[in-house]
Amino acid sequence: MTTTPAIILVRPQLPENIGAAARAMANFALDDLRIVRPRVALPDGAATAAAVGAAPLLERARVFDTLEEAVADLTLLYATTARERGQVKPVETPAEAVPYLRMAGGKTGVLFGPERTGLENDEIAVADRVLTFPVNPAFSSLNLAQAVLLFGSAWFQSEGLPFDMPPRSPLAEKQHFQAFFAHLEGALDEAGFFNPPGKKPVMSRNLRNIFSRLGLSQQDLATLHGVVDVLAEGRAKGVRKGRRVLGEVEE
Amino acid sequence: MTTTPAIILVRPQLPENIGAAARAMANFALDDLRIVRPRVALPDGAATAAAVGAAPLLERARVFDTLEEAVADLTLLYATTARERGQVKPVETPAEAVPYLRMAGGKTGVLFGPERTGLENDEIAVADRVLTFPVNPAFSSLNLAQAVLLFGSAWFQSEGLPFDMPPRSPLAEKQHFQAFFAHLEGALDEAGFFNPPGKKPVMSRNLRNIFSRLGLSQQDLATLHGVVDVLAEGRAKGVRKGRRVLGEVEE
Repeated sequence: MTTTPAIILVRPQLPENIGAAARAMANFALDDLRIVRPRVALPDGAATAAAVGAAPLLERARVFDTLEEAVADLTLLYATTARERGQVKPVETPAEAVPYLRMAGGKTGVLFGPERTGLENDEIAVADRVLTFPVNPAFSSLNLAQAVLLFGSAWFQSEGLPFDMPPRSPLAEKQHFQAFFAHLEGALDEAGFFNPPGKKPVMSRNLRNIFSRLGLSQQDLATLHGVVDVLAEGRAKGVRKGRRVLGEVEE
Repeated sequence: MTTTPAIILVRPQLPENIGAAARAMANFALDDLRIVRPRVALPDGAATAAAVGAAPLLERARVFDTLEEAVADLTLLYATTARERGQVKPVETPAEAVPYLRMAGGKTGVLFGPERTGLENDEIAVADRVLTFPVNPAFSSLNLAQAVLLFGSAWFQSEGLPFDMPPRSPLAEKQHFQAFFAHLEGALDEAGFFNPPGKKPVMSRNLRNIFSRLGLSQQDLATLHGVVDVLAEGRAKGVRKGRRVLGEVEE
């Protein structure tokens, strides 16, 4: 059986919304609630009251200091956004996303941003795909629990559908993708790639988007680690060898 | 264009729920709210507050003394119930009901019962069909506005996404992809990546498959050329920039 997607609330502001989100999860048999830096420390009375019968689910929720830790064990990750955010990632409705989530293998998840502002661009960049809810453009405000409810409903409706099939090659967990990207970024930093330094955030995000579009498996990551290592070492050798290689390439 | 279904709240108890239902309607461009014998007289401050931006829709709502009057002009009518009610009527999910609603000529509608008790059997009898929401049987309580939200979402599904992936630069031509791959492969060869040499064909094919899954644009290729250059070349910082430009135009 497919494990249910983790619901990850990123910097939620109101404890009532955390509780209502837990309740919406329980309506659709979602069980893994993760919370990144809630504004109010948990457990919280208002959150528990809003959860009503879903209080046990809320008690089991895990709180994280960073988004990276919260998604470390996940394979396929969606970021919910209410509007165009200019990132080159596939944009899907819940009905479109659910089959991918079911097929992904391993543990999947969906990010929900803070009530007022939504997810930041760097948070969206951590995800593989974008989830959005088809709503009336003239009145598009959904509250946090409603967004969780709509996703949960789409997930639950597909229960029992016969499209659970094992992926050919399971996607890498986010922690391993992060480790690869940190490796690449470190090597590029070392080599002076991010120039001028003020452009590093944009350059880094573009690069991350290129690689997160891949749907990389664990084996792919091992290969790419090797590529970065070998190139960075080769570069060091090149320096020691007094640029012999360079001369050939340049001419 | 199909007219949107009327949402008919039958004897709603809490004004907050009326306002929240109006808001959920506005999220999905439903516009015709009808209320049968609300417990609290309208307009009501709590209802208006809960409607937020949907207050105008709430103000246009029509209040009726009887269910029969409220549905008099409707052609196809659904009654929502949370559980089996023993009436011999088709029972459908929102996804199943929406096509019928869209195909029915004239004005259609959906009944939602009071929060605590749901619709009475005589009220359900007025409807043609029964609408129910697939929820976790172990945690099936949906509030009134959530039920309206789930119906509205299903109705709105076919209207299309509010935004799509931003237009990106066109995919690179195969010749440019080949040139990039030759660049990468050459750099890896120089650095001794293909080891033992007999495994080079397999290693190279795996690597090509990773990068060809990316769907790389011309701009992505320029970035990746830069990555390979910067990692591979042990250049003094002043010279690197010139080489990177070369890499981008190299074919």
